[in-house]
Amino acid sequence: MQAPKNLDAIFYPQSVAVVGTNKTKGTVPHDIFYNILDSNFQGIVYPVSPGEKSVAGVKAYKYIVDIEDPVDLAVLVFPSSVCHLALEQCGKKGVKSAIIISAGFKEIGGKGVEREKQIKSIADQYGISFIGPNCLGVINTDPKMRLNASFARKMPEEGNIGFLSQSGALCTAVLDYAQAKHIGFSKFISFGNKADINEIDLLYYLKDDPRTKVILVYLEEISDGFALMKAAQVVISESGKPVLILKSGRTEEGAAAAASHTGSLAGSDVICDAALRQAGIIRCSDIEEMFNRAIALAYQPLPQSNRVAIVTNAGGPGVLATDAAINQGLKLARFSEATSDILRKSLPKTANTKNPIDVIGDAHSDRYNVALSSTLKDENVDGVFVILTPQSMTDIDEIAREICNCSIQFKKPIYTSFMGEADVASGIDILQRNRIPHYILPESMCCSFSAALNFKNRSTKSDSSEYSPLDHINPQKAKEIFEKALQSGKRFLSGRDAYDILQAYGFPVGRYGQASSKEDAVALADQIGYPVVMKIVSEEIVHKYDVNGVLLNLCSAQEVAEGYSSMMKVISERKPHAKIEGVLIQEMSESGVEVILGVKRDPSFNAVLLFGLGGIFVEIFEDVSFRIAPLSPPDIQTMITDIKGYPLLSGARGRKIMDIASIEDCLRRLSQLAVDCPQIKELDINPLIVRNEGLGALAADIKIVI
Amino acid sequence: MQAPKNLDAIFYPQSVAVVGTNKTKGTVPHDIFYNILDSNFQGIVYPVSPGEKSVAGVKAYKYIVDIEDPVDLAVLVFPSSVCHLALEQCGKKGVKSAIIISAGFKEIGGKGVEREKQIKSIADQYGISFIGPNCLGVINTDPKMRLNASFARKMPEEGNIGFLSQSGALCTAVLDYAQAKHIGFSKFISFGNKADINEIDLLYYLKDDPRTKVILVYLEEISDGFALMKAAQVVISESGKPVLILKSGRTEEGAAAAASHTGSLAGSDVICDAALRQAGIIRCSDIEEMFNRAIALAYQPLPQSNRVAIVTNAGGPGVLATDAAINQGLKLARFSEATSDILRKSLPKTANTKNPIDVIGDAHSDRYNVALSSTLKDENVDGVFVILTPQSMTDIDEIAREICNCSIQFKKPIYTSFMGEADVASGIDILQRNRIPHYILPESMCCSFSAALNFKNRSTKSDSSEYSPLDHINPQKAKEIFEKALQSGKRFLSGRDAYDILQAYGFPVGRYGQASSKEDAVALADQIGYPVVMKIVSEEIVHKYDVNGVLLNLCSAQEVAEGYSSMMKVISERKPHAKIEGVLIQEMSESGVEVILGVKRDPSFNAVLLFGLGGIFVEIFEDVSFRIAPLSPPDIQTMITDIKGYPLLSGARGRKIMDIASIEDCLRRLSQLAVDCPQIKELDINPLIVRNEGLGALAADIKIVI
Repeated sequence: MQAPKNLDAIFYPQSVAVVGTNKTKGTVPHDIFYNILDSNFQGIVYPVSPGEKSVAGVKAYKYIVDIEDPVDLAVLVFPSSVCHLALEQCGKKGVKSAIIISAGFKEIGGKGVEREKQIKSIADQYGISFIGPNCLGVINTDPKMRLNASFARKMPEEGNIGFLSQSGALCTAVLDYAQAKHIGFSKFISFGNKADINEIDLLYYLKDDPRTKVILVYLEEISDGFALMKAAQVVISESGKPVLILKSGRTEEGAAAAASHTGSLAGSDVICDAALRQAGIIRCSDIEEMFNRAIALAYQPLPQSNRVAIVTNAGGPGVLATDAAINQGLKLARFSEATSDILRKSLPKTANTKNPIDVIGDAHSDRYNVALSSTLKDENVDGVFVILTPQSMTDIDEIAREICNCSIQFKKPIYTSFMGEADVASGIDILQRNRIPHYILPESMCCSFSAALNFKNRSTKSDSSEYSPLDHINPQKAKEIFEKALQSGKRFLSGRDAYDILQAYGFPVGRYGQASSKEDAVALADQIGYPVVMKIVSEEIVHKYDVNGVLLNLCSAQEVAEGYSSMMKVISERKPHAKIEGVLIQEMSESGVEVILGVKRDPSFNAVLLFGLGGIFVEIFEDVSFRIAPLSPPDIQTMITDIKGYPLLSGARGRKIMDIASIEDCLRRLSQLAVDCPQIKELDINPLIVRNEGLGALAADIKIVI
Repeated sequence: MQAPKNLDAIFYPQSVAVVGTNKTKGTVPHDIFYNILDSNFQGIVYPVSPGEKSVAGVKAYKYIVDIEDPVDLAVLVFPSSVCHLALEQCGKKGVKSAIIISAGFKEIGGKGVEREKQIKSIADQYGISFIGPNCLGVINTDPKMRLNASFARKMPEEGNIGFLSQSGALCTAVLDYAQAKHIGFSKFISFGNKADINEIDLLYYLKDDPRTKVILVYLEEISDGFALMKAAQVVISESGKPVLILKSGRTEEGAAAAASHTGSLAGSDVICDAALRQAGIIRCSDIEEMFNRAIALAYQPLPQSNRVAIVTNAGGPGVLATDAAINQGLKLARFSEATSDILRKSLPKTANTKNPIDVIGDAHSDRYNVALSSTLKDENVDGVFVILTPQSMTDIDEIAREICNCSIQFKKPIYTSFMGEADVASGIDILQRNRIPHYILPESMCCSFSAALNFKNRSTKSDSSEYSPLDHINPQKAKEIFEKALQSGKRFLSGRDAYDILQAYGFPVGRYGQASSKEDAVALADQIGYPVVMKIVSEEIVHKYDVNGVLLNLCSAQEVAEGYSSMMKVISERKPHAKIEGVLIQEMSESGVEVILGVKRDPSFNAVLLFGLGGIFVEIFEDVSFRIAPLSPPDIQTMITDIKGYPLLSGARGRKIMDIASIEDCLRRLSQLAVDCPQIKELDINPLIVRNEGLGALAADIKIVI
C-alpha cells in the first residue's frame, strides 16, 4: 500500500510560500519563515504578507496568487479566523499541499469545530492535502532539501529516526532532549488536529522513505485503531522498520485531560495495549523509554538471540547489569574456550574472565579492547554490554573511541552505560556522536536490548499466516436472525436465536431446542436425550439464576415436567410481568474446564475478542487476554497461552490435557462471526466447557447484546 | 539502640594518620592523603610512610608510633600482605579506629580470607573498630570536620543524604551522578568487605547523626537480614528517617556474579523483597530510582495525602503526567471555588483552569506563579507537580526561580519536570541548587511522590503494635517431641508427632490419634466420631496419595476396617520395605476454602512465613505472600489481604465471608512456633480448611521437615 496523499510536496517542495508571515521576531508567523530561510533550504521560500513589503530581507507578496512561479507548498500562519480565506487563495493559485500551523480549531470546541470543517471542505474542493491545523510544523533533514517549516527553536541533527507527534508542545521537549544526546531525525512531523493528513498516512509515507529506519509516534487518541494496526503491520512486514508508539491517556483521568485538550475520545487502554502488541507495535510508556529503544533499533544491528556478554570495570554495576539482563529474559553468554583463553592471557589475574567480565578498576582502553573484540568474535555471543565507572585511572574518552572502532569492525550490537555524569560526559558525547547506544542505567540498556530482540523475533515470524475462510458456515442465516430480532425490537438474545447463530457458525452447541409449553419441553427433552438442562428464555430476565430460571441435570421426563412447573411458578411470583418466550432445553455437558469467550464492539478497534478461564479467574484474578479480530493463527495461539492459568489447560502437574484445539477452533469461528456481524455489540460464551483432549467442547451458555 | 562501635572517631577524628602513603600522584596511597589535606580538613593529618621524608609538603613519619601526639583515626593504604603489621603498630600507638582501604582480602578468596581473619583478630585484640577492607573510604561533609578519607575524585556537596555502599566502584559513579545534579551528602561511606563495622552499625550511627535526613544503602548481599530489618525499623520509628536500599543480586545469575565478587551468598530475592518491605525499607530497583526518591524525601516535606495539582505549559505532557499520577495511586485534586476563581480571573481564556492546569505555551513566570501559589494555598491540594516545555517565549530561568520562592513560602511538596535537555539546563540547575526535586520524566516525578506518600503513611502507623505472648501453649512439649524425633534420626514429621506439636501451640487440629493395628484404628474412629480420615504414617512415604495412603470420609467402623486392610495391602505391594508407624485417624473437616500456611528457615532472615490459597492458586498462580517472623498484627493483616485471591475469603461478589479471624490466629501461632523452635526447617499446613465466618478452621494436613 502507498501513502495516498500528496505528501512528497510537503517534505520535498521546490517552492514554499509562508502565508501570513510578518516582521515581528519571536512570533510564530515570523519565526517559521525565518526558520525555513535559515535552515539552508534547497528550494525557494516566499513570504506572503498583506502588510509587509519584505520579511527578513526577502521581498514579500501581498497574496499568494501574486507569486509568479508555481508554489508546491503553502505554510499557513494566519489567525484561525481568516485561514479559510488564505486557503481559498492557495487553491486558486493551484497549490496542492499545505501545512496549517494556526491554532483555534477543533481543540477549542464550538466555533473552532466549524472552522475546521470549513478548511477541510475548501481543501477537498481544491484537492489540497494538508497537515494540521494546530501544529508545530514539519522538518525534513535530508541534505537534498533541509526544510524546517516549523517554529521549533532549532533544526535537529540528521539521522534515521522518523518522529510523528500529535502534540506540538511535546515536540519542543523532544527536540531539546534529542539535541543534547545527538539523536538525529530523518523527518520530524507535528500533525496537530490531523483534519486531513493523519498518522496513518504518515506511517505509509515513512515506510517508503529511504532515510527513515525507525518510526516513533506520539498519540493522544487513536481514532481509527483498526487502520492504525493495519498500517503498522504493513510498515513492519514490507519495510522491516520498527514502529514505536507512546500513547498517552492510558488512565481514565488521563483520557479526560486529553479530551479537554484535543477534543477527542480515548478508548479503553487495556484494549489499546493488546491491539498495539498484536500489530507488532512497540508500545512505550514514556519518552525516555521510547528513545532508549529507538537508538538501539536505529544505531545497531538487531541481536540474533539473547546471549550477551557484559564487560565492566566495576563489580557492583556488573551485578546490577546481570540482574537486569536476566529480568529482561536475556542470558549471560558462555564463552568459547578460545575466548576464555584470550581473556585469561590478556587480562590481569585479579580480573574476572567469566561473564560478566570485570576488567578491574584500573583498566585502560587496551583491556576493554581485548574483552570487546574477543567476545564480539565469539559465536556464543549475540551482543555486548559495556559498562564503565569513572575511576581515577580510567581513560574514559579513549575507551569510548575503542568501542566506536569495535562497533564498525563487528556486526553485532554493542550497547553502553558510562555511569556517572560530569566525569563521563565527554566519553558519552563521543559514543552518542558515533551512534553507539548509551544508557545512564544498565537497566534501561538491558530493557532496550530485549525490545530489539523481541522485534527481531517478531519480524522473522511468518507475517502472512492467515486463515482461509471457514467452510460450512451459514452467514446468511445469522444475518436473518439478527435482522428479525432487530425488527422486533430485541436488544438481547439468549435463547434459541443465540444458539442458532452460533450453530450457523459451526460452534459446538450440542443438541438443543426451545419449547413453549410443558408438553413441548418434555417432548424435546425426550428427543435430545437425558440428562438435559432447562433455561428460561425471556428478554426481560437477564439474570436467570436469580429467578430459578436454570435447572441442571434433569434426568427424566418427569423431572422435566416438574421442573417446568416449578420454574414457571417462581417466575410468575418474582417477575409477574416478564414476557416469557419459552424454555431452552439443551443437552447437559460432561464436566470439563470452563472458559469464557467474548466479543466487545469497540469504536476504535471494531471487534475486540476476549478469552479467559471462567468464574473466579475472570471475576477476581482478571486472567484474560484480548485480541482484535480478525485473528491469525499465531494470534489465537498466543491468546490462549498468554493467560496465567494456561497450565490448567495444557496438563501441567499431572493434570489431564484439555482439548485446546477446540478452543482454537471456537476462537477462529468467533473472529469470523464478529467480523461478519456488526450487529453484535457484546457477546459472551460463558462457559464454554472444554473436555479432555480429543473430546471437544460445548458452549453451555450464550448471551448476545445487539 | 545506639551504634555499638567507636564510629565517632571515624567521622570526627581530631587527628588522622594515613599509613602507607607515598609521593606518587595518581596512586591510591598518595591520593588519599592528598584528598584529606585538600578537603579543608578541620583536624590534623599525618603522612606515615617508611620510604618518604615528606608527602605533599607535609613531614612524614616512618611509623605511626613515631607520631608524638595521639591519633584518632588510621587510614591504611599498605598492600594487603603487610596490612596486619601496620594494624599492629596502630594498636600499639593506641589508635582505636581505622579505615582499611587496601584490597586483596576476602574478595579474592584463599589467602585473602586468611588475611582478613588475621586483621580482624588484631583489631579485636587492640580494641580497634574499622571500616573495610577493600573500600573507597569515608567522607564527612560536615563543615566542622570536612573529611575526605577516600580516593574519590572529589568531595561531594554538603547535604542531608547519608550514603552507604558495599561496592567502591559504584561510589565513584554515584559521586559523579550526584555532582551533576547538585545532590549533597552528609556522610558518604564505602564499607567494602565489612570485616568489622557493617551496614547495621552504620545505620544506627546515621540514625543519630543530626546532619542526615535520608539514608541510602547499596548492598550486594545481606548477611544478617533479620538484624538489618530490626535496625531499619529502629531507625525509622525512632528518627523518622527513611531508609532506601538498592540490593543487587536479585536474580540467581546476579547473585552468582555477586558471589564471585564479594565472596558471599545471596538469599532468595522474593523473601528479601518481602522482608525489606515489612521493615518499612524503601527498596529501589536502580540508582536513578533511588536518587529520584531520595531527593523527594530529603528536599521536600512529606505529602499529607494523595491529591496533587499539575501545572503545565503544554497539554501533551500534562496528559502523560496525569496518567502517571493515576497509575501511582494519586488523585487529581479538585480545586476549591476560591482557587478556581483566581485561576479563571488570572489566566488567559484559552488556558485550562481545571486540573491539570494548562497555562498555555506562551506562559511567562507570572502565570506559573498564579497557578502555583493558588493551588498551594488550596487545602484540597497535597502537592504540586510543575511541568515546563521550552517553547520560544518561555522564560525558563525566571520560572525556576519562581518555583523556588513558592517552595520557601509554602510547606507543601513541589516537584518539577522541565522537559528537554539543552534549553532547560540552566533552569534545572537553579532548581537543583535550591533543592527542588527535578525529574526528567513526569513518570518518575509521580513515582517518587508516591514513594514519599507511602513512607508517610507507613511512618504514622503505630509501629509499636505487637502481640502479647500466647497463653495456654506448651512449648516444652513441642521441644520434647522435636528432641525425641531428632534423637531417633527422624527428619520428617507428618503423623501424630506433627499434630501434637501444632496442638501444643493451640492450632485447630480437631480430634485425632494414631493407631498401629486395624482394631486400634476402629476403636479410635469410634471415639473420634464419624466421618473420619485415615492416613498412613511413615517417614519413607512422603507422597501418601501415590500409594493410596489417604482415605477420606470413612463413615463407619466397617469402612475403617476395610479401608485399613486395603491401604496396607496396596502399600505392602508398592512400598514393601517402608517402615510403617501406623495410621493417623482424624475427624473429617466440613468443607471450606483451602489455604496454605508455611514456614521456611532462611540463613539470613531466619523464619520466613508463607500464606496463600491452596491448590492451583499456589501451584499455578503463585498467589502467596511472605513475611518474616515474628509477625505484628499489621503484618498478619496485610499478609492475608496482600494475596490476589483475598476476595475469595472476604465474601466478594455474593460469596460467603470466611473465618479470617481463625487464619489470623493460626498465623500468629505459626509465627511463635517458628521463632520458638529452630528445629523446624520447613513446615506446611496444607490445607488449612477455613469455614464460614465464626465457624473456625481445621488444619487438615501437616508436614514438618526438621
